[in-house]
Amino acid sequence: MTTPLPDFADLLAAAARIAPYAHVTPVLRSRGLDELAGCELHFKAEHLQRAGAFKFRGACNAVFALDEAQAAAGVVTHSSGNHGAALALAARLRGIPCHVVVPAGAVRSKLAAIQAYGATLHECAPTIAAREAECARVQRETGATLVHPYTDPRVIAGQGTAAMELLNAVPDLDLLVAPVGGGGLSSGTALATAGSAPNCRVIGAEPSGAAETFASLQRGERVTEFTPDTVCDGLRGTLGEINFELLRRLRVDVLTVDDAATLAALRLFWQRCKQTIEPSSAIALAAVLAHPEVFAGRRVGIVLSGGNVDLDNLSALLSK
Amino acid sequence: MTTPLPDFADLLAAAARIAPYAHVTPVLRSRGLDELAGCELHFKAEHLQRAGAFKFRGACNAVFALDEAQAAAGVVTHSSGNHGAALALAARLRGIPCHVVVPAGAVRSKLAAIQAYGATLHECAPTIAAREAECARVQRETGATLVHPYTDPRVIAGQGTAAMELLNAVPDLDLLVAPVGGGGLSSGTALATAGSAPNCRVIGAEPSGAAETFASLQRGERVTEFTPDTVCDGLRGTLGEINFELLRRLRVDVLTVDDAATLAALRLFWQRCKQTIEPSSAIALAAVLAHPEVFAGRRVGIVLSGGNVDLDNLSALLSK
Repeated sequence: MTTPLPDFADLLAAAARIAPYAHVTPVLRSRGLDELAGCELHFKAEHLQRAGAFKFRGACNAVFALDEAQAAAGVVTHSSGNHGAALALAARLRGIPCHVVVPAGAVRSKLAAIQAYGATLHECAPTIAAREAECARVQRETGATLVHPYTDPRVIAGQGTAAMELLNAVPDLDLLVAPVGGGGLSSGTALATAGSAPNCRVIGAEPSGAAETFASLQRGERVTEFTPDTVCDGLRGTLGEINFELLRRLRVDVLTVDDAATLAALRLFWQRCKQTIEPSSAIALAAVLAHPEVFAGRRVGIVLSGGNVDLDNLSALLSK
Repeated sequence: MTTPLPDFADLLAAAARIAPYAHVTPVLRSRGLDELAGCELHFKAEHLQRAGAFKFRGACNAVFALDEAQAAAGVVTHSSGNHGAALALAARLRGIPCHVVVPAGAVRSKLAAIQAYGATLHECAPTIAAREAECARVQRETGATLVHPYTDPRVIAGQGTAAMELLNAVPDLDLLVAPVGGGGLSSGTALATAGSAPNCRVIGAEPSGAAETFASLQRGERVTEFTPDTVCDGLRGTLGEINFELLRRLRVDVLTVDDAATLAALRLFWQRCKQTIEPSSAIALAAVLAHPEVFAGRRVGIVLSGGNVDLDNLSALLSK
């Protein structure tokens, strides 16, 4: 493996680096949801993070870790949404160019957010090969640094700061649940927990229609061949190599959740807590509600990863 | 007039009475919305109040103001939604019966909330005559005290505590905007402002499809004949007599807002602030965005009245 794994020191450095820019998001509670779930829930509200998702943490850490010469040439990434917006905002805050390669058919409201932060959009076919080729072209022509949405040690370290804040705010968590897509948030969360609260168990919540992380950890080798089929548009990425390695070493368990359960949890959270979270966030609550045998009576942290919902698409979603 | 007008002392008494039960809701800010609106916005987050709306304040004040004998016989009201749920919760907290008369066709999620708090539902035809008759029948048969959704001095005093908290938290507001339906919130807000911040101007935001308060204040007499036509299901009530009197005496101005502007503001607030507010709340932000000549450069308070959205109905709403 050529990419080094980030460690807890990288996470502490990330926390210091992003402190001037990122919000320390609140931890939310709900009596009603505690009763329903039969456990004590502490929600880390990353939907209230800048650019509407935890992704700003990793992007911000990556952008502000660049030296002056690297920074001057800007950054580039491929992202169907939240990471693109997050990188665009981080680049704007540092005053450097940002290029975002987006697949055709990406969520409209997320593309609008990326453009609103001043990044240049490059549309490509919705395949991994096409987006990597387009990224490579932009890198070649501009000298921009690639900031991958999740297979990047600086990004992973940044994402881990959300869990670190939660563990500092609520020191006695028994379990901490984070959504799993490409593995940026979940591996960062595992790193934070290993460093801050080693007795707390980290559980990933993954869509059953894109459960390659679950399969990878079961088999002991990374599964990359799969076709995602899930409403969780933030969790369709393929588990990264260093992400897999971290999840494996740090013994993260994954629970799979079907879309119906995720959408039911989304409705429930909207109704009870009046917070607009996206399906990729609601999956973590859905995992808790579906597995009382794991969570009953425990003190549970949940990372609400983001709140960037496409309201036009939501109608179709909720009628599913 | 037989019903006495509440005064600022009643409001102070209400604040003390409900303090053990009601949340002191947060005041929310948004850089992005401030830029868009061209003014400084301070949102009083009553969608995070218990039972999901400011209505809990008035209901709680009315319920806990009853003497023991009155309380034992319970309370009754007619309400298409938020007040019913609020009264049901307040009655449960005092341990007394609650009867709620609801019109056929009321918002489903709101009825479910009322029942979840343990109240007895009585369905009637969706006319004022039918609900008053049904309320009278329940009063006769049970001895329950009527707690009207807005034409009740205890209710008005309770609703005013939201504005009082906001004015205490942000002392230098130039303007304070509240939605106008039957006039409970708006007259309570005017009372709080007259007592706490007499230099702050109170503005009501009323749906143009149910603008009888605007018409009443223009004519100098209460207009009661109208057929509401608006998506703001919390603002369809007829301006009450004591509410009219308070709004008139305290010189509240009303801006009318059409549903398209309200729904645009709803979308904007959901997207920017990730808070699930209902159309009847979004109307106040819509009024600010539509009238830069009134609000530009000023420090503006907005009462976000509630967040009880029917998600099934929302799809139809947003596609309007």
